[in-house]
Amino acid sequence: MAGYVSEAVIRRLPGYYRYLRTLEAEGVKQISSQGLGERMKLTASQIRQDINCFGGFGRQGYGYNVAELREHIGKILGVDRVHKMIILGAGNIGRAVALSDSFPASGFQTLAIFDADPKKIGTNIGAIPVQDVETLAGFLANHEVDIAVLAVPLETSQQVTDCLVENGVSAIWNFAPVDLKLPEKVTVVNVHLEEGLEILSFKMKQMNG
Amino acid sequence: MAGYVSEAVIRRLPGYYRYLRTLEAEGVKQISSQGLGERMKLTASQIRQDINCFGGFGRQGYGYNVAELREHIGKILGVDRVHKMIILGAGNIGRAVALSDSFPASGFQTLAIFDADPKKIGTNIGAIPVQDVETLAGFLANHEVDIAVLAVPLETSQQVTDCLVENGVSAIWNFAPVDLKLPEKVTVVNVHLEEGLEILSFKMKQMNG
Repeated sequence: MAGYVSEAVIRRLPGYYRYLRTLEAEGVKQISSQGLGERMKLTASQIRQDINCFGGFGRQGYGYNVAELREHIGKILGVDRVHKMIILGAGNIGRAVALSDSFPASGFQTLAIFDADPKKIGTNIGAIPVQDVETLAGFLANHEVDIAVLAVPLETSQQVTDCLVENGVSAIWNFAPVDLKLPEKVTVVNVHLEEGLEILSFKMKQMNG
Repeated sequence: MAGYVSEAVIRRLPGYYRYLRTLEAEGVKQISSQGLGERMKLTASQIRQDINCFGGFGRQGYGYNVAELREHIGKILGVDRVHKMIILGAGNIGRAVALSDSFPASGFQTLAIFDADPKKIGTNIGAIPVQDVETLAGFLANHEVDIAVLAVPLETSQQVTDCLVENGVSAIWNFAPVDLKLPEKVTVVNVHLEEGLEILSFKMKQMNG
């Protein structure tokens, strides 16, 4: 569908998707590269270049069809399908992911949450049951799971990961502040929330200095 | 301290800081650009280039002093000082930030949490009191606050932001899925958690052909 897409462009894809969804929700049907650039704080030429990368769209002087472009980028991202998730760890991060409205609205559906704490096992977070992490392998044998959200304490993160991988999970959204040891076939995206604060600190310093 | 630092290098700074802290915790005193590159999945030449950007460090064939480099990058990031934070919104994200151990360990100290829900006001999250958002202006008049963590519902995010800005807050860590309208002097870092899932979806798609 799209040709070679550089890492930098890949990183911008979710941004395009988000802005186009907002425009669609606002009822905007058509947008120029100029107009989209103003929203996204990119130049019109950058926008045109990126969108060419995604597979060529729009016509000079006419602009882009918002719904079509949003759909096209959604397909490139692979978010035009449902992804089934499980969450490992019913702590604050696990709860925040489980209770988010926006993930299921984008097709990321949480099937179950696993934890080792007997006080949490058997309870529900929102409508999602918290199950004993000891039953994880059995659950994976009986359910198709696309993505595991790893939000367990640092100490157990590799052990839980090994169990996920042994039982066929091939994509991990990792909130543990550690580089997981993974076979090549497993895809991982690491979230380092703290980096946001560090970048903020850096920018504050630049601004004041 | 450092010369011109590009956006791409800035984005890598927190990563360097994290890996160097890990090395320091492991008791590693000295590391080559090769060794650091292997950890960070960058080439040795990329590492040398980046570190030159930060202000020149290490000697050919000798490598970097881990503690010194970590400290140096910490200073560039501005995390060698304490940052006082307040959290707006005692929901799941606000709770997760408030209850994190890693933020205070890095000098990001939360003074108070504000919410509009009478059931939450007056309670504590960890050791941090939840206060009425109506008292926010008064609190800001009497406390020095470096960073506001914005974790309120989308509908009220701009209104709360306006109150923060009017009362002198100049840095916002924004978890609301919206581009806040801000004066130039206010620094913002937006967290779009969902982008992580979208990138994961994209990578899974690439992997599976």
